[in-house]
Amino acid sequence: MTDTEEHRRLIVAGTGIAGLTAAIYAARSNNDPLVLEGDEPGGQLTLTSEVENYPGFPEGISGPDLINEMKAQAEQFGSELKHGVVESVDDSERPFRVELTNGDVYTCDAFIAASGASARTLGIPGEDDLMGYGVSTCATCDGAFFRGEDMLVVGGGDAAMEEAHFLTKFADTVYIAHRREEFRAEDYWIDKVQKKVESGEIEIMRNTEVLEMHGSAEEGVDHVTLARNESGYPSEKVDDDETEVFDFDVGAVFIAIGHTPNTEYLEDTGVELDETGYIVAKGGKGGGQTATDVEGLFGAGDVVDYHYQQAVTAAGMGCKAAIDADDYLEDLPEAENEAEAAAEAADD
Amino acid sequence: MTDTEEHRRLIVAGTGIAGLTAAIYAARSNNDPLVLEGDEPGGQLTLTSEVENYPGFPEGISGPDLINEMKAQAEQFGSELKHGVVESVDDSERPFRVELTNGDVYTCDAFIAASGASARTLGIPGEDDLMGYGVSTCATCDGAFFRGEDMLVVGGGDAAMEEAHFLTKFADTVYIAHRREEFRAEDYWIDKVQKKVESGEIEIMRNTEVLEMHGSAEEGVDHVTLARNESGYPSEKVDDDETEVFDFDVGAVFIAIGHTPNTEYLEDTGVELDETGYIVAKGGKGGGQTATDVEGLFGAGDVVDYHYQQAVTAAGMGCKAAIDADDYLEDLPEAENEAEAAAEAADD
Repeated sequence: MTDTEEHRRLIVAGTGIAGLTAAIYAARSNNDPLVLEGDEPGGQLTLTSEVENYPGFPEGISGPDLINEMKAQAEQFGSELKHGVVESVDDSERPFRVELTNGDVYTCDAFIAASGASARTLGIPGEDDLMGYGVSTCATCDGAFFRGEDMLVVGGGDAAMEEAHFLTKFADTVYIAHRREEFRAEDYWIDKVQKKVESGEIEIMRNTEVLEMHGSAEEGVDHVTLARNESGYPSEKVDDDETEVFDFDVGAVFIAIGHTPNTEYLEDTGVELDETGYIVAKGGKGGGQTATDVEGLFGAGDVVDYHYQQAVTAAGMGCKAAIDADDYLEDLPEAENEAEAAAEAADD
Repeated sequence: MTDTEEHRRLIVAGTGIAGLTAAIYAARSNNDPLVLEGDEPGGQLTLTSEVENYPGFPEGISGPDLINEMKAQAEQFGSELKHGVVESVDDSERPFRVELTNGDVYTCDAFIAASGASARTLGIPGEDDLMGYGVSTCATCDGAFFRGEDMLVVGGGDAAMEEAHFLTKFADTVYIAHRREEFRAEDYWIDKVQKKVESGEIEIMRNTEVLEMHGSAEEGVDHVTLARNESGYPSEKVDDDETEVFDFDVGAVFIAIGHTPNTEYLEDTGVELDETGYIVAKGGKGGGQTATDVEGLFGAGDVVDYHYQQAVTAAGMGCKAAIDADDYLEDLPEAENEAEAAAEAADD
């Protein structure tokens, strides 16, 4: 029915830290992995200019460099990397049938979902129209385009602090709007931001949210509408007397409010996803921690982990997924496999 | 009662991959960690000559080099490393009271057990007497002392394969004795060993166990007594007709049969240990995966993980333990803490 149909022992979806670590281990276990590089090759880490907390690099390493090292390592042991975005996985038959958005079809005996997470947006008026024209989810990528402007960073976690700190290189003043009083970020980042507050380069607006963005594709962002309420979450309390709503001039807006896991392609499978779309992996002690409800389908990295979300925790989980997949593949009767693949091929 | 008593916010026991990663993260969170370096500084990884599967180093890196990079990284962010072996942790009071084998006492608000595992031995006649005189648990450390000799490696996992492969540099012939038919090792290592079998440098003895080691401290290992039974586990079937017992000449024996977690110092605490001594950590989804049954006491690396035991999985868990400990410390009422510490000090 399709032009391309190829059987692989193992497919890894994703070339972020989790996918590449799974690839390194899977290749060393002779599972000949096909690693699908999606629309954000290298994943979230490529958006980080300097990774200081990945163990083994005391002088730090840039996100793209670390990804490239891992890619070289995965290929060296025999992983095949290819561009491809998974459209769906059919787990009603074995081998799995994996369809890509370009129409290519693969079958595979085991599948590791390491497709990561993508930046979340605010869903407010003006945001979609101005995305790429002054509104961005990546300070590292876009900060330099707005030299000398006032910039607004939205968020209160590590990413928001890091982006705000980074943007002081380019901005007149960086403003941070955070919907609560307290920041979620590491102390390390809060301290670094505090120094920039003291030197007048950053200004923090607590209990403040963006309600709307104003501007045009031609002229970029002109100003935003903000709401402030000292009890936090002002957008939910816009009509309260204590809520102050006001316009605020900025030339660029950077949104750093977290991520949504890329797991849409698993929605029709037996894999349990939580209400936000994260894969519910088996966890527990001993082997099989990355197993899902579907035998032979494993999850690793930001598609599973909604809490720690560090480069090294993603790497750890990628390694576990490759080991779990290898255990699964070792136990799979080879003959049954081949018979199924042959039957599959004959059907087409 | 003691000369030295010092209060610390966080103590990390262990300077292997897990402990050092915890230290990097804890220092960046301003938790001012004291990191205790035990009798095996750097942990198991320092015994590995070449680490090829730690993500980020496509050319490989030696175990000691990787450890040194992580040590530098931990110290750079403010971790204090000190030699010290934990004798006991008293979790009946807060702060925890941590006694070292040298008599020093520390108190701390949170504690991360990352004290790793130590090589297991066979427990057979001759082994203790010849340990260090031809019997070793570390091919990397001791292989070169036995140039030109026939060597015996005991075990069937990755470590045994890697050691056997490494020892071909020095040995006349390397023999591998494994108590079962099947090897537990990665295919990568089995394939590498197989090549050496084909070239005549390694000889594999399946379903074979060592019953006794013979020799002297002066002359080293002279020979070993072996048992073979085609159904496996011959030492349990010595008297069976099918079991063959015979003497075998070798000049050195390398034992690579796994590890025992270093958790004796936790036996009198509320921390649940499994029958082998591994810490039972909470696991699960979201935060607190490295938590134990004792609030404020966390576990990471080879003291918890009896299955994956890779450098990068230990690093991932060390990172999680530091984040879990930081969450715990952030929630701890500062005042109560200080009052307790003061009361503690007054008691002495």
